[in-house]
Parts: sequence; C-alpha cells; structure tokens
Amino acid sequence: MDVFEAMEKRHSVRSFDAARGVPDELVARLLRCACLAPTAGNVQPWRFVVVRDGRIKEGLAAAALGQGFVARAPVVIVVCADLESHAASYGRRGVELYSIQDTAAAVENILLAATALGLGACWVGAFREEEVASLLGLPERLRPLALIPVGYPARPGSQPRKMPPERLTTYL
Amino acid sequence: MDVFEAMEKRHSVRSFDAARGVPDELVARLLRCACLAPTAGNVQPWRFVVVRDGRIKEGLAAAALGQGFVARAPVVIVVCADLESHAASYGRRGVELYSIQDTAAAVENILLAATALGLGACWVGAFREEEVASLLGLPERLRPLALIPVGYPARPGSQPRKMPPERLTTYL
Repeated sequence: MDVFEAMEKRHSVRSFDAARGVPDELVARLLRCACLAPTAGNVQPWRFVVVRDGRIKEGLAAAALGQGFVARAPVVIVVCADLESHAASYGRRGVELYSIQDTAAAVENILLAATALGLGACWVGAFREEEVASLLGLPERLRPLALIPVGYPARPGSQPRKMPPERLTTYL
Repeated sequence: MDVFEAMEKRHSVRSFDAARGVPDELVARLLRCACLAPTAGNVQPWRFVVVRDGRIKEGLAAAALGQGFVARAPVVIVVCADLESHAASYGRRGVELYSIQDTAAAVENILLAATALGLGACWVGAFREEEVASLLGLPERLRPLALIPVGYPARPGSQPRKMPPERLTTYL
C-alpha cells in the first residue's frame, strides 16, 4: 500500500473479527517496521511484549481503565521504553522526551504497517503504567508506553475529522 | 512509494543539495500527512512553524547546540505541542505523555512522506527549548518538540544498523 494511502486509511479499530486470528508472521512484520523508526542517537529504546494469553489481556484491559476491547483483540502489543538506555546517553531529556518520542514513532510505524496489511489496531495510552508493568513482570527500567490491540477489523471505519494544517501553521 | 519501502528507506539526512529548494506545495503535503497522525481523544495538539528565513534558521541551529546543518536546509519545520489542549482533556498525563506521543507520530508521518517525495529530512531533538520558543515568538502554551530540516539530499544514504526485533521482544 502506498504510504500516503496508509496514512489516510489508518484509524483506530476497537472492534475485531472474532473469527480471524493474527498469525505470528504478521506480528513479526509489524515489529520489524517498529524497529525501523527513527531514534535519537540510534539508541533504539523500544522493547515489545506480545500478549496472546487471555488472562493477561484481561488484566491489560482492566489496567486500561476497563477498556474491554483490549482483551477482545487476538493479540496485544505492549510497547515499552528502556529508560536506562537513553538515560545513559542523554540524561533527563533522554528519559522524559526521547524515549517517548522514539517509541511513539515505532508505534506509528506499527499502525501504518497494520493498515497496509489489512489489520486494525488502536493506540491505547490511557492505562495505569504500574499495573501493566506488574502484570507483565517488567523490570524497573522498562516503562510501558502504549498498548496496541491488533486484529482484523469487524467492520470498515475511517478517521475522525481533522483540522486542516493551514489553521495550525505559521510561516517565518 | 510503498509504505514498507518508505520505512526501510527513511534515514536522517543532514546534507542538502544547495541548488534545489523545497516548493511550498511539498511542505503543505508534509503537513497534511502530519495532521493524519493518531492523537489521543482526537485532540490534535500539533502546531507547526515553517521557517525559511535565514537568520531564524541560524538561530535554530545555534539553539540546537550548534548543529549547523539545520541552517543549511532550505526549510525547517518546527513541530510544537499545544500543551493546553491536552491539559484540558487529560491533565498531567496529557501534557507529559500524549502531547509528546501525538507530535512524535506526526513527525514520523512527515519523515515517511518526505522519503516518499524524494526529500531528505532529519529529526532534531537536541535543542534548548526556551531559546527556540523565544526565537519563534511562541506563546507559553506551545512547546517546541522537534526541528525538522528538509531539503533534497546531497547524496544517497541509508539507515544505521538496527537491532532485530527478536532480541527486543517477549511473548506471553
């Protein structure tokens, strides 16, 4: 799929086709795309937890303030940042900014790739981080920054209305 | 360009063809792509400053700890987050996380679109934010989060070596 088309078509999918699973090869493809994202100083702070276990998915949904669709996706990719890798190179700016930016770019790559592969996904940011970390047994240095439920969409969808860039831009 | 190819080919470009400018239409196209990024609650906190003025570009390069290539790009897109928009919806998590994530996804869309258009760009994150804000006359609510010098690349390039996702992933 053309890159511009992927950007246009990408949208949050929260309802999945229960009859279709997501093969491991497709998850691997999404993660390869994530790893192609830009990253300050090539630090690559991204770490991934791929969750298929039903009870853990239920726990993620609960940690995500009860967003039940998280548990109904065939697979949930949890994107984490290894805070120590950026701390070593860039100190506080690395931890509080670059680690978030790098992993966010990786998430966007996953979402665009999912769109191109006919999958649906959603970037879930509203969750209790400590609860997710505890559930997944993450070491202290890993901060969970996004939950991405992935599956085949139950129905077609589209992006919500966006503001035109002209309203948001200044020229100097 | 295929979305997977764009992800593979995207890399930081810091040396630009001095003979080729970047037309306004292409900048507008990049910004339209930025505005298609995912954003928590559809808040769309991204704001853009497009800088072509030579003295301001020099100021940006200085604020970016002397990274002179910033001033040698025909155009620099400064991506800012409107902190108040996310604060109103999501409080501290909105300001410290979602505003950074949303704008980072917008930056990644810009970089992928630039790649597809044959342009070169670089995500510059190392800069003194207050100096950039003052230089651009940004209101208090706008936080500059990325400088993106854009131009035609002076020479071909490629991504630095990336770690394979298998080393970075746990399956549950």
